[in-house]
Amino acid sequence: MKEQMLPAEGKLGILLPGLGAVASTTIAGVIASRKELAKPIGSFTQTGHIELGEGKGDRYPFIKDFVPLAALEDVVFGGWDIYEDNVFQAASHARVLDQHLLNAIRPELEAIKPMKAVFDRNYVKNLDGTFIKQTATKWDAAQELKKDIETFKKENNLSRVVIVWTGSTEKYLEQTAVHETIASFEAGLKNNDAAIAPSMVYAYAAVSMGVPFINGAPNLTTDIPAIVQLAHKTKTPIGGKDFKTGQTLMKTIVAPGLAARSLGVNGWFSTNILGNRDGLVLDDEENFKTKEVSKLGVLEDILRPDLHPDLYGELYHKIRINYYPPHGDNKESWDNIDIFGWLNYPMQIKINFLCRDSILAAPIVLDLALFADLAQRAGMYGVQDWLSFYLKSPQTQHGEPAENDIFKQLNTLKQVLRGMMQEQTQEAPAVKRTKVTEKVI
Amino acid sequence: MKEQMLPAEGKLGILLPGLGAVASTTIAGVIASRKELAKPIGSFTQTGHIELGEGKGDRYPFIKDFVPLAALEDVVFGGWDIYEDNVFQAASHARVLDQHLLNAIRPELEAIKPMKAVFDRNYVKNLDGTFIKQTATKWDAAQELKKDIETFKKENNLSRVVIVWTGSTEKYLEQTAVHETIASFEAGLKNNDAAIAPSMVYAYAAVSMGVPFINGAPNLTTDIPAIVQLAHKTKTPIGGKDFKTGQTLMKTIVAPGLAARSLGVNGWFSTNILGNRDGLVLDDEENFKTKEVSKLGVLEDILRPDLHPDLYGELYHKIRINYYPPHGDNKESWDNIDIFGWLNYPMQIKINFLCRDSILAAPIVLDLALFADLAQRAGMYGVQDWLSFYLKSPQTQHGEPAENDIFKQLNTLKQVLRGMMQEQTQEAPAVKRTKVTEKVI
Amino acid sequence: MKEQMLPAEGKLGILLPGLGAVASTTIAGVIASRKELAKPIGSFTQTGHIELGEGKGDRYPFIKDFVPLAALEDVVFGGWDIYEDNVFQAASHARVLDQHLLNAIRPELEAIKPMKAVFDRNYVKNLDGTFIKQTATKWDAAQELKKDIETFKKENNLSRVVIVWTGSTEKYLEQTAVHETIASFEAGLKNNDAAIAPSMVYAYAAVSMGVPFINGAPNLTTDIPAIVQLAHKTKTPIGGKDFKTGQTLMKTIVAPGLAARSLGVNGWFSTNILGNRDGLVLDDEENFKTKEVSKLGVLEDILRPDLHPDLYGELYHKIRINYYPPHGDNKESWDNIDIFGWLNYPMQIKINFLCRDSILAAPIVLDLALFADLAQRAGMYGVQDWLSFYLKSPQTQHGEPAENDIFKQLNTLKQVLRGMMQEQTQEAPAVKRTKVTEKVI
Amino acid sequence: MKEQMLPAEGKLGILLPGLGAVASTTIAGVIASRKELAKPIGSFTQTGHIELGEGKGDRYPFIKDFVPLAALEDVVFGGWDIYEDNVFQAASHARVLDQHLLNAIRPELEAIKPMKAVFDRNYVKNLDGTFIKQTATKWDAAQELKKDIETFKKENNLSRVVIVWTGSTEKYLEQTAVHETIASFEAGLKNNDAAIAPSMVYAYAAVSMGVPFINGAPNLTTDIPAIVQLAHKTKTPIGGKDFKTGQTLMKTIVAPGLAARSLGVNGWFSTNILGNRDGLVLDDEENFKTKEVSKLGVLEDILRPDLHPDLYGELYHKIRINYYPPHGDNKESWDNIDIFGWLNYPMQIKINFLCRDSILAAPIVLDLALFADLAQRAGMYGVQDWLSFYLKSPQTQHGEPAENDIFKQLNTLKQVLRGMMQEQTQEAPAVKRTKVTEKVI
Repeated sequence: MKEQMLPAEGKLGILLPGLGAVASTTIAGVIASRKELAKPIGSFTQTGHIELGEGKGDRYPFIKDFVPLAALEDVVFGGWDIYEDNVFQAASHARVLDQHLLNAIRPELEAIKPMKAVFDRNYVKNLDGTFIKQTATKWDAAQELKKDIETFKKENNLSRVVIVWTGSTEKYLEQTAVHETIASFEAGLKNNDAAIAPSMVYAYAAVSMGVPFINGAPNLTTDIPAIVQLAHKTKTPIGGKDFKTGQTLMKTIVAPGLAARSLGVNGWFSTNILGNRDGLVLDDEENFKTKEVSKLGVLEDILRPDLHPDLYGELYHKIRINYYPPHGDNKESWDNIDIFGWLNYPMQIKINFLCRDSILAAPIVLDLALFADLAQRAGMYGVQDWLSFYLKSPQTQHGEPAENDIFKQLNTLKQVLRGMMQEQTQEAPAVKRTKVTEKVI
Repeated sequence: MKEQMLPAEGKLGILLPGLGAVASTTIAGVIASRKELAKPIGSFTQTGHIELGEGKGDRYPFIKDFVPLAALEDVVFGGWDIYEDNVFQAASHARVLDQHLLNAIRPELEAIKPMKAVFDRNYVKNLDGTFIKQTATKWDAAQELKKDIETFKKENNLSRVVIVWTGSTEKYLEQTAVHETIASFEAGLKNNDAAIAPSMVYAYAAVSMGVPFINGAPNLTTDIPAIVQLAHKTKTPIGGKDFKTGQTLMKTIVAPGLAARSLGVNGWFSTNILGNRDGLVLDDEENFKTKEVSKLGVLEDILRPDLHPDLYGELYHKIRINYYPPHGDNKESWDNIDIFGWLNYPMQIKINFLCRDSILAAPIVLDLALFADLAQRAGMYGVQDWLSFYLKSPQTQHGEPAENDIFKQLNTLKQVLRGMMQEQTQEAPAVKRTKVTEKVI
Repeated sequence: MKEQMLPAEGKLGILLPGLGAVASTTIAGVIASRKELAKPIGSFTQTGHIELGEGKGDRYPFIKDFVPLAALEDVVFGGWDIYEDNVFQAASHARVLDQHLLNAIRPELEAIKPMKAVFDRNYVKNLDGTFIKQTATKWDAAQELKKDIETFKKENNLSRVVIVWTGSTEKYLEQTAVHETIASFEAGLKNNDAAIAPSMVYAYAAVSMGVPFINGAPNLTTDIPAIVQLAHKTKTPIGGKDFKTGQTLMKTIVAPGLAARSLGVNGWFSTNILGNRDGLVLDDEENFKTKEVSKLGVLEDILRPDLHPDLYGELYHKIRINYYPPHGDNKESWDNIDIFGWLNYPMQIKINFLCRDSILAAPIVLDLALFADLAQRAGMYGVQDWLSFYLKSPQTQHGEPAENDIFKQLNTLKQVLRGMMQEQTQEAPAVKRTKVTEKVI
Repeated sequence: MKEQMLPAEGKLGILLPGLGAVASTTIAGVIASRKELAKPIGSFTQTGHIELGEGKGDRYPFIKDFVPLAALEDVVFGGWDIYEDNVFQAASHARVLDQHLLNAIRPELEAIKPMKAVFDRNYVKNLDGTFIKQTATKWDAAQELKKDIETFKKENNLSRVVIVWTGSTEKYLEQTAVHETIASFEAGLKNNDAAIAPSMVYAYAAVSMGVPFINGAPNLTTDIPAIVQLAHKTKTPIGGKDFKTGQTLMKTIVAPGLAARSLGVNGWFSTNILGNRDGLVLDDEENFKTKEVSKLGVLEDILRPDLHPDLYGELYHKIRINYYPPHGDNKESWDNIDIFGWLNYPMQIKINFLCRDSILAAPIVLDLALFADLAQRAGMYGVQDWLSFYLKSPQTQHGEPAENDIFKQLNTLKQVLRGMMQEQTQEAPAVKRTKVTEKVI
């Protein structure tokens, strides 16, 4: 192990603001996996491998055997919510997991009770919580959150804590002056500036304590200078935005493939139907806008119409999300992609993804929590853009353009892990083959 | 340019055995592109770029400006067919391209007349040609092909010739003793060994003359020791098999994406409907088998069930091709993919690709011809597995496992091109980013 | 022929307010059919048959041989538009029909020039016309339309005229006091009442002259008491609303099938993408609402949740229309239908309809025009609900519930035709069979 | 009630040859419905209504309140199988119904044990049973079946018995001389004629005892003169063939809709994937042929290319069934329909039906059993073609052409029920409307 890397000693607390479908599925899955009732499929940290050594790799260990991650046995969950339901109740209500699996781990789930949330309906019009901190200012709210974190750490005898935002999408906000510096932000907290959304209060509380914070929603949250500066000041890893689950996941898989083959794209229509709480929140136009902005950028970055005007200069990209209660958490997407090839002849691709929102999000929550903790122990702080593999709209360092191609994102993630462990970073697999080719010749 | 690389001086002949839909679409497209009536979309050599330099690349030239490819202006087409139709007639009959475009280049297309084919209905039961060489032995047929090639070269004043097989899928053959050595193969030619299919006769003729030969069908053809040995002896590039067009193209895009995310796959059902001559040929069971074997291997190589038994150990992969005349050349595929994620919960992906067989294949024919010629001028010979990007079932050197992941294939292709031009081979993009991350810290 | 039925003597003028994609496709198709360049497929009047006689029918003549319809040779087209383009220009711009077909009938199409439209952007925000009547009041506009109709009739030496609205969807309006009586409506015309949309001005002008008027958009138009009363006063056939083309057509086919089998439905999500002028108009929320109301009622009428609460009591029906320019007139719909069967087990049906808006609408325009003319000659007037077969949201007599099941609609249409010609109305086909069964016994 | 109709007194035995997925789902569903644990959705006899009286109907009672059907409480199930599993085991193994539902009715299911089957692997190559009657001749086998039926009737104190074939598809057979008369058939039974399949032995045994027999597979079974003659001799209702479940159900819904609108069809490709025992059986070519013949006829009958050559003269219809274990009983179909409209412009419809084979079949089994019993009590015998609503390839009387349009089939079924109860048979709904229209005028 790298010298400066701290080992994963003691217990790791994972705090989740928003104990709804995604959070309860994550928690239940980790507990079920510990009891060997189920497998943490979809989690790269738990089931993935990494190629090490020359060429295509002569070693291929599990990620969890290669880097010193916290073990599932050492993880303790907690969180906040706007309803008082414990995690068993929340998971039962979410109807994602089979009730019989939930019953088998009922005591563990019932033991996890939310702390009162920081919430303001002005940012999420379609929800109305009942279990909410009453404070005069956002500054006071942040102080209470800090106390919550400390109490949680102490009561559970934890050595480290990380936070992953699993709460709702907030209404669309743009960066303003109050977000510019730590000082302006703290002043804003004190005078209840409307540009400071609840998720920012959580991020501020966490980062000011040195607790890593990853944002799974498309909200600004950590993507403002004030929080980035604070993260550098307190040497804390941060990251975001928006878990890359169903439709965007497919998009960042398929688009690089079309680009690889120099196939043109002149239209991409994406629609979604989902009936969970997330769908309800996004049924409001202001909240949808936040999501839409997060999702729209993906294609442009991958296809680069600026460099390939003949292929992508006319691309029309439209995204719709529809609240559709019959589907519950079983989010379904349908994409129509209008492509063209040789002599501009048109062709079409239709993709229908019958996915499950929380099933796809849960392993992402787990991986991001474990990697954020790892980063902190490795002495890395500020924006962790090497985790963009998991995110729809990656926050980058210094305003660099985001990488959205999932294959390049995965390469980056692996290279960083190799770097951490002082393994040889791998050249693109082609190189060695080329040499072989030439030797033959 | 690399010192030992020969320049692209003079004219390049591209000979196509099988002047049907794919070949005529390729030829018409190149001519139309030369006249600026259309664009060669989908051709990496004509529209693609390559990243050069440090990190994400500080230069991004067109491929055709980077490596010394033959220019479209310098290309001359010819070929063989089992029908006497000229290319205008063949293209009109194929109904792939708009008749008005064909009319606009009618004289150029009419001028290209097939030479008599080497054909044997025992290998393609559903076709019955009328324009076929009558020879006593396969050896004699090879001699006639060699004469054809020489005549073509001379009459058109060419400096170089390459051959890309655009003919039909032949019936399933397995490697036998006759394929083992040059000597056994030549003996087989002379005594009309049944294990020597017509496509092998073409490959033998070409390679024995030092003419590069690329195989676009799933037939064995060049994938036998005799031809490989001959290619080394005559220092000729060879490659194959089977153009990667519609459904398999999508498969090698999507499967790496699922693997990236550690999502399990327990079923993948692929069906195709097409109504062109290719569909008719594949309606015969023996010919379909050749295709099926070519298509089936793809998933196993990408997903590696041996390394990830929890994710892919139960994978059931089924492929069907159906002759369906109403669609003509508009091949359509439908895939159902049964995946599973967190705690083994099932999800499904359906992909419906309304493609056009020849539109997708034509730029591949062009690129393979140009790259095969480039390889020869670069002094590369034997199996050109760096071109696997274009192929469904890549023939490899020394029995190495094939790489089917399209993103890795593209990396390889680019690395080889960089190597040819003595540019720095690129590390995976992650590396530089990591260092930046660490510097910030 | 029925005694009181007037024969189809002389020429029939068909006037179309809105000479866009649908109208120009209709006109071009009729002209091309007259010249035998193409066939009027999809037109029940031109290609359909009718069963006559006992049981399953012992005769099966063409509709056009059974009832005295105007012949295509006797039809003369005209219309109004907000752009000055002649029909050749309009059809070329619409990009529905192949340009070579249009060129073949160019003189006939160029000869059809629009008259200036009655238009008000307050009702169609996303369009902005340049060829519009300038009048002080809506009353004056109606007088000008009446003059247009008379002039058209005289100049073309017509014996009869009908009007089919092929213009845009207007913004959502509800019935108000001004629509209640002829008198209140005429007063409203004179004082420019905002509740009188342009389409109503056309309807008023037509019906006051005894010219049949059928409404192909979801606008109220003729569906107000004032116009119904006027139709009875002037003995004029009227009808509407909204041509039943793509998605709703499929819906009224599939829903009766599910109901037949007592399969439950708890969700039906319908989305559309289209890029023609219709799509642009519906991109505005107020105009979409008019369409949505028209489309939403269909399921409830067919499935009758009031009578089958166990099966349809929980039905959630959502419709979306998206403006998507890459598709032009090639409207595409995608439906997800959540059904349930035995013991409430869920199943899903997905329907993807790659249709062409104007190709589906054109034969409807023709049939409605010919049948409206036939009705008038048969002495039928007021609301022609027997034509609901062609309409998404049928206007009915006396507020009766609409019939939306396409199979019942077709039965009705045929029964009315049989009645007109004093043929025996057919019993449901079962009856005779039953008797046979009993005879056997 | 009709005078000659016998009431539904006493208990009704339903015997099912083949206690696999379909049969066990039927049985479990009826028992669960009796206990009000679930609802018999999809069953027309249990949830359907019927219009009675004038016009659109002034009464609308439940079917089960209108005709004297056997009540679910009075039904007793039994059957034969080639494995010894009781129905609880069979249902658990089939994995159609939730295990928790099965556990809730375990004792009732366990009590139903199969009798030894008449089976011959020559007719179903992919199955190999272990619980099979050993008899010297097919005649002896028939005698044993008759004893089984009598014993079952006696032990359960039943007043009536019906049989519905829920066994496998047998290999393709054509009608031969042995099937021509009762005498030739009985001779064939005695000398083990190869043209007599096991399902015919069951049919013979049942019908010779006056027990109604309905065939749910595409086998010939009752569709031979010998059995029809026997049915007339013993005054027994018979019927078949092949339950109309997923894809064909959709086809007989959609095709009448396309025909209604005079839309042309030039291609219809249908593929299926399923992984249950039925799928395994149909993976064999000889058995698939039986199914294919049953499924192929449907379109021709509905579209009548003979009468509409312009619309359907070129129709290419292809059907594929693929064994695909990952899906189990969750059969999935995908259809591509190539249609054309106005001026022959092409359009496409794709239908993806994610259905459940046994869930769709179970209510059909129940309805057919109850209606067959009703028919017998009503004095109807011979081929019951009024039940064609439920069948893919309806057996008809006197070689009449089959009716496959599901809407006409439903009309027939209802008319027969009305006739049984001496209710006025309903005219097509149009008629009254027309008169109203004319009155208004």
